[in-house]
Amino acid sequence: MTKTRIERDSMGELQVPVDALYGAQTQRAVDNFPISGKPMPRQFIRALILAKAAAARANVELNQLSAAQGKAISDAAQGLLEGDFMQHFPVDIFQTGSGTSSNMNANEVLATLASRLLDEPVNPNDHVNCGQSSNDIIPTTIHVSAALALHEQLLPALLHLVQVIEKKAAQVHHHVKTGRTHLMDAMPVRMSQVLNGWAQQLKANISHLQDLLPSLQCLAQGGTAVGTGINAHPEFAACFSRQLSQLTHVQFTPGKDLFALIGSQDTAVAVSGQLKATAVSLMKIANDLRWMNSGPLAGLGEIELEGLQPGSSIMPGKVNPVIPEATAMVAAQVIGNDSVITIAGQSGNFELNVMLPIIAQNLLSSIELLANSSRLLGDKAIASFKVNESRLKEALARNPILVTALNPIIGYQKAAEIAKQAYKQGRPVIDVALEHTNLSRSQLEELLNPEKLTAGGV
Amino acid sequence: MTKTRIERDSMGELQVPVDALYGAQTQRAVDNFPISGKPMPRQFIRALILAKAAAARANVELNQLSAAQGKAISDAAQGLLEGDFMQHFPVDIFQTGSGTSSNMNANEVLATLASRLLDEPVNPNDHVNCGQSSNDIIPTTIHVSAALALHEQLLPALLHLVQVIEKKAAQVHHHVKTGRTHLMDAMPVRMSQVLNGWAQQLKANISHLQDLLPSLQCLAQGGTAVGTGINAHPEFAACFSRQLSQLTHVQFTPGKDLFALIGSQDTAVAVSGQLKATAVSLMKIANDLRWMNSGPLAGLGEIELEGLQPGSSIMPGKVNPVIPEATAMVAAQVIGNDSVITIAGQSGNFELNVMLPIIAQNLLSSIELLANSSRLLGDKAIASFKVNESRLKEALARNPILVTALNPIIGYQKAAEIAKQAYKQGRPVIDVALEHTNLSRSQLEELLNPEKLTAGGV
Amino acid sequence: MTKTRIERDSMGELQVPVDALYGAQTQRAVDNFPISGKPMPRQFIRALILAKAAAARANVELNQLSAAQGKAISDAAQGLLEGDFMQHFPVDIFQTGSGTSSNMNANEVLATLASRLLDEPVNPNDHVNCGQSSNDIIPTTIHVSAALALHEQLLPALLHLVQVIEKKAAQVHHHVKTGRTHLMDAMPVRMSQVLNGWAQQLKANISHLQDLLPSLQCLAQGGTAVGTGINAHPEFAACFSRQLSQLTHVQFTPGKDLFALIGSQDTAVAVSGQLKATAVSLMKIANDLRWMNSGPLAGLGEIELEGLQPGSSIMPGKVNPVIPEATAMVAAQVIGNDSVITIAGQSGNFELNVMLPIIAQNLLSSIELLANSSRLLGDKAIASFKVNESRLKEALARNPILVTALNPIIGYQKAAEIAKQAYKQGRPVIDVALEHTNLSRSQLEELLNPEKLTAGGV
Amino acid sequence: MTKTRIERDSMGELQVPVDALYGAQTQRAVDNFPISGKPMPRQFIRALILAKAAAARANVELNQLSAAQGKAISDAAQGLLEGDFMQHFPVDIFQTGSGTSSNMNANEVLATLASRLLDEPVNPNDHVNCGQSSNDIIPTTIHVSAALALHEQLLPALLHLVQVIEKKAAQVHHHVKTGRTHLMDAMPVRMSQVLNGWAQQLKANISHLQDLLPSLQCLAQGGTAVGTGINAHPEFAACFSRQLSQLTHVQFTPGKDLFALIGSQDTAVAVSGQLKATAVSLMKIANDLRWMNSGPLAGLGEIELEGLQPGSSIMPGKVNPVIPEATAMVAAQVIGNDSVITIAGQSGNFELNVMLPIIAQNLLSSIELLANSSRLLGDKAIASFKVNESRLKEALARNPILVTALNPIIGYQKAAEIAKQAYKQGRPVIDVALEHTNLSRSQLEELLNPEKLTAGGV
Repeated sequence: MTKTRIERDSMGELQVPVDALYGAQTQRAVDNFPISGKPMPRQFIRALILAKAAAARANVELNQLSAAQGKAISDAAQGLLEGDFMQHFPVDIFQTGSGTSSNMNANEVLATLASRLLDEPVNPNDHVNCGQSSNDIIPTTIHVSAALALHEQLLPALLHLVQVIEKKAAQVHHHVKTGRTHLMDAMPVRMSQVLNGWAQQLKANISHLQDLLPSLQCLAQGGTAVGTGINAHPEFAACFSRQLSQLTHVQFTPGKDLFALIGSQDTAVAVSGQLKATAVSLMKIANDLRWMNSGPLAGLGEIELEGLQPGSSIMPGKVNPVIPEATAMVAAQVIGNDSVITIAGQSGNFELNVMLPIIAQNLLSSIELLANSSRLLGDKAIASFKVNESRLKEALARNPILVTALNPIIGYQKAAEIAKQAYKQGRPVIDVALEHTNLSRSQLEELLNPEKLTAGGV
Repeated sequence: MTKTRIERDSMGELQVPVDALYGAQTQRAVDNFPISGKPMPRQFIRALILAKAAAARANVELNQLSAAQGKAISDAAQGLLEGDFMQHFPVDIFQTGSGTSSNMNANEVLATLASRLLDEPVNPNDHVNCGQSSNDIIPTTIHVSAALALHEQLLPALLHLVQVIEKKAAQVHHHVKTGRTHLMDAMPVRMSQVLNGWAQQLKANISHLQDLLPSLQCLAQGGTAVGTGINAHPEFAACFSRQLSQLTHVQFTPGKDLFALIGSQDTAVAVSGQLKATAVSLMKIANDLRWMNSGPLAGLGEIELEGLQPGSSIMPGKVNPVIPEATAMVAAQVIGNDSVITIAGQSGNFELNVMLPIIAQNLLSSIELLANSSRLLGDKAIASFKVNESRLKEALARNPILVTALNPIIGYQKAAEIAKQAYKQGRPVIDVALEHTNLSRSQLEELLNPEKLTAGGV
Repeated sequence: MTKTRIERDSMGELQVPVDALYGAQTQRAVDNFPISGKPMPRQFIRALILAKAAAARANVELNQLSAAQGKAISDAAQGLLEGDFMQHFPVDIFQTGSGTSSNMNANEVLATLASRLLDEPVNPNDHVNCGQSSNDIIPTTIHVSAALALHEQLLPALLHLVQVIEKKAAQVHHHVKTGRTHLMDAMPVRMSQVLNGWAQQLKANISHLQDLLPSLQCLAQGGTAVGTGINAHPEFAACFSRQLSQLTHVQFTPGKDLFALIGSQDTAVAVSGQLKATAVSLMKIANDLRWMNSGPLAGLGEIELEGLQPGSSIMPGKVNPVIPEATAMVAAQVIGNDSVITIAGQSGNFELNVMLPIIAQNLLSSIELLANSSRLLGDKAIASFKVNESRLKEALARNPILVTALNPIIGYQKAAEIAKQAYKQGRPVIDVALEHTNLSRSQLEELLNPEKLTAGGV
Repeated sequence: MTKTRIERDSMGELQVPVDALYGAQTQRAVDNFPISGKPMPRQFIRALILAKAAAARANVELNQLSAAQGKAISDAAQGLLEGDFMQHFPVDIFQTGSGTSSNMNANEVLATLASRLLDEPVNPNDHVNCGQSSNDIIPTTIHVSAALALHEQLLPALLHLVQVIEKKAAQVHHHVKTGRTHLMDAMPVRMSQVLNGWAQQLKANISHLQDLLPSLQCLAQGGTAVGTGINAHPEFAACFSRQLSQLTHVQFTPGKDLFALIGSQDTAVAVSGQLKATAVSLMKIANDLRWMNSGPLAGLGEIELEGLQPGSSIMPGKVNPVIPEATAMVAAQVIGNDSVITIAGQSGNFELNVMLPIIAQNLLSSIELLANSSRLLGDKAIASFKVNESRLKEALARNPILVTALNPIIGYQKAAEIAKQAYKQGRPVIDVALEHTNLSRSQLEELLNPEKLTAGGV
């Protein structure tokens, strides 16, 4: 049995574990929401603590808290972040839709710690929550945590992946392979063109994510209860953003319209939509890798991914494309997370969206999953795959579609006849063309050289 | 300029095209909702007209309408269904959420036609709509139209597809091919096992759809305005269902709880969820077909789908798997339609769901698309593909994974060594095994015979 | 630094924590997949261990393992389940798409424990995994874990919720309230009719879930690598199902077609679709509760939900509908989980679906969230709300829509005039009707008695 | 029976309606795809025709076509656009995944018309399709049609809606109402603050859509078959973009990487994600309007939307919020359309995405639906609603939450007691505060003046 102490709030008394830094309202939430057994994400709690530190500093600056009180809260936040803080934040993701329970959890933990530092009572509501409401601090924390996760995790990971791809593209530039449209043999492409296409997909996603950062770095803070800023100092929003920017080295600004930022979660919906688009790109890349690696003998067998673990307990020597598979699963999960955020985003009414905790959870999960899998995809799949040059050459040599290049000389009709015969007889198209045209073998070798046929590419 | 006549309703006068069978309320809806430019689905309007005929007959039976009035309405409905009725139903899908405008459209058109037949005024509200409300007739029409579309279109089409697959499976039973897990070469399977697996997927979907039919054939009719049945005869629900069953040859029954059937659209959500599951199965089958057909030379090339149209204006001789592609697109659309219905289903409040028109539209679209593409997939892809036996044999012969079958005799470790060497040297596994075991070539041919290795399959 | 020991597999040596029960392949997976930081769900691991025990027993029965070996594995599984087993299963959800790493994790942990019990080596592959492949045991574990979670958690929770609602309905039967369609005042309904409608929604969902249980209780086990059952005893599938049924008290049966059960995840997709439908129902119920509870003064104020925690740090006395909010968030999450499963389900190719881990994770998450929130919704919201009778009466008294009941006596046209005047003048409709008809007050009180107007309901 | 003529392509002869402008390949597609019965969207066909005109002009400029040929094609396109062109484009949406059938449809129709103008044969492939492939022209047409629809339809409609809202906000600035968080009474807000919040939501969406225009105006044209530009003039991409920009007055540019633009549909996915975000905003606004309008008596009754049509055939005087309902249905549809595009976007393999037709269809549908419903929402709902000032005042007067404003003077604890008593006794909070504080009525009237309490808003 856990030893407990008695705490009290406006609804009465209740038992709290004797060593808990949190108080009555956190405990009430723990008791009320035995739903998922999972706490709010670490990144969210970290951003909430940072926001509380910024608020304390702003309140000192605006004379809403004494310098000592503000320093105690700010130091408490700093100390908390340096340790294993998640143990103090047990409230379930599926809680009150405003995230008030998590806000009060932070208020209570910081009040306890600040009281110890200051050696006088620091009140969770009057001091730690001063000039704030769950209605502004929780939307603020969603924006801050997502912005930090993008800056610190996802954008660097995507850039790393782009660099790995572009470096690999340079290494495999000399490899030419059969292009495929509708999965059917088409005109040849360079391996580097394929990879640079992927890199460009990712660069476009990075750019689109960056376009959303200014909106994400706009904060609801200062709106308090319904967006009017009731009971907050008029300069609190600006001062808070400045303090938070200093603490995080990311530029945050007060929102243009706090009613929009509290009543809706449109920015989260937009960012999630773009994370989903990034997932779609990664799904395409992961699947291309899986198929290029397929075989080794009865598949396409164009590349060989690094072997990372035995693939089967029953089939000796089997090695599977596990990193692209994990990446594809991440993509599927991110697409589903976006569904959650879409539903949550449209469920708001009047002055407050009340699906904030699951918006936070799904948004941060998407960012983290994409970041971690992008690094792995680069480092453990793309950087290290080998090209099966002989398979590429063999397929190219007998691809009748290459005859397309003769169209301007012998005409589409004649070219079609050659292609059909080459396919029907299973012979190299060059041999068939030699019989049916006046072109010499050296002319044909020149005209049907797959490497040259890729030269028009951008 | 269209010639118009003046009509009047409780909100005043307005212009209606002079020849229109409909009246003021339909015209008002036409004016109010210039959104998609698309009318409600044909299947929906047909079911609505059938329901109006059934209601008229029930009202005669229960002495709510005179026999002459009832017959006029019923005959008008019958006549309407025999002609090009959609021209009289111009109301946009995106209209009032209850579908009242479509209900009044039907009431007005039938009132006009019945008045002509009877040569005395038949009133849209008092007579055609007698004992009904949009709140029960529109949910009823959703159930009826979906049930008829399942019975008449989708279930027969899926059964047809199953039959085509099973017939084809019998034809290709002797073909053995390399199985693939993780897209990588695995133990062999029979082509018939693959096809019968698809057939079983579809049979399970058919069964799950059939499980939902009793719920779908339960009707909201009789609940009128909010589910209480205010102003309707107490026996109307039962009588209506009986009459409609006679008209449609499908067994409809009164709902157990009319509040649930009017306030929610749970049955539509459940049916759509199962249509989505069917789409997922078709996507898998379509993709397997596309990949088996890939190549013809640089792909897997296991089968050759019937060529239906030239595949490219630029690449001579290219033929693409267009029917599986269309099927995959249908699957994607059905999955998206299910998203719409999911959101619509959860958007109801209190006594009425008010996203009924888009539920109808997306549900019927899913059924029709699945039905039409299932038939095509069977008739124009599966029934007619050819197997490239030489490709299958060639791949099987050099698949080192076959060594799995030697595990019980030479042990996993030894088998692994043989597999690795066979792959590294690009030699048939049987040749390598001959060097590294005491087994004779005839013993190995027996043990590694791919056809035998599939025999354990169910 | 964690102390390590050296382990070895076919890819070479690596470091494993010295006390770990697992071996090389688990460690390799831990190293390969630093993606989500989250292990497979507890319910999944539990079902996997149960399946291993059933396999061991079946293998003894079929003479594939000695009685001592089988007992050791079975006892090891039993012992593991009795303790804190999750610490031994560290592999990330985002791993190889087949779940092979989790299968090998179970094989290694049970081999270590069984070796200790037996005092002779028990091999992870040859003994614990005997007659199995990841390709059949992981799909089997998905079905088994989901079936157990439905039987043990969700179905009882939904039944409990139905019972709570029906009990409450009986208690509030005498309360009549204004019905609402399009959110607009409509004819009156009984509070019991509203609640019984919810109960019926849930009963239909229970029934639809139960319809899917036979499919879910069909297992892929026995198919081994690709569905053919290579290297498994022909009676293994039947014997395994029998043993597992004994261990779990749930009736499992061998699948009709093992290729379908390994190559696709259609049953999971179908079950998830129905879980989504259940979520849609709960969303509707949760929202109705939230709106009925809205106010207390500036909202509808029809009921007062039990106060569970202070609602605001800034607004004294505010209490929020936190349980319906948490339920609505669960519904949103389940809908998103279904998106993941839908994408995962359609991503399979050929003989194996390779998004199995996220199918397991999202399916089990949906079941658990729905179960836990359904209980809370019943016990902490529906069982304990109070009805604000005076608010209901006040609204009913002045609702001009009640005039609908006079239609048969004074005609729709006259009734409409009365309704409009009552609304315009803000007077009770009965007073206006008294002036405009020949009906006496007592007659009108009888005809417009809201309680009587609900009597036609089913 | 339709009279036919015989046409021929590389697969043989077939019957084409005698008057059809199209030829064999179009007819083949009509025969192959009897799936939805719906043609590609008008906006798509228009953009395809414009692209063909631009291509003809570019080819003249680059000496790939004679001036006469180019002029004939360009004039034919111009003439076609001026008439009822959709009758000539019968190919189903569910066709080949590349949209080749639609491309050939355009090539054939323009070839017929240009041949008539020129009085010599113009070939669909060699002349109309010169320097193009379906693989570049169809992705190009998706971008062009969506860009035009955004510029011409959606962005102006959203801007119009913003203007209507801001104008209305100015008109209703003096109205103060009870704010609601968690649907529960909260501190007051101005009606103008609510509306300006909506306007800001829409402005953010407009801005995010505009951020995506540069990507959307980047074209795949010039990549031809697989992205390499085989058989196209090296300057074709640049020249085509310039010509198309002149024709459309929208600035199009050649893509940076044509492989990315042909192999993926990432831009469409990103744009659709942002359309979905816009739909989420509209859903919130539509629902706020519906709830503010609810009643008129038993709901919130804060506003009265313009009555557009009778709401019920059974309940006299009922008027429903039909425009917000239609808007909410549009939002649901757009969210589902985005699901389709998401699945389609991730389904691409290698050098070509083959779900192009449904991407086009769903993307253009979303843009059109959002545009049309946004205008209606502004003009027929927001511009014309009336405010029920007395209802707002009545609710504000008795809202105990206003006591929040006394916190700084009498303390949170005392304020809480007053709030609770006021609510319990159903009295105005000002009366209770008068009894429990030393503040005078005039002081309290000043402090609790709802209008002043909104002043902190942004």
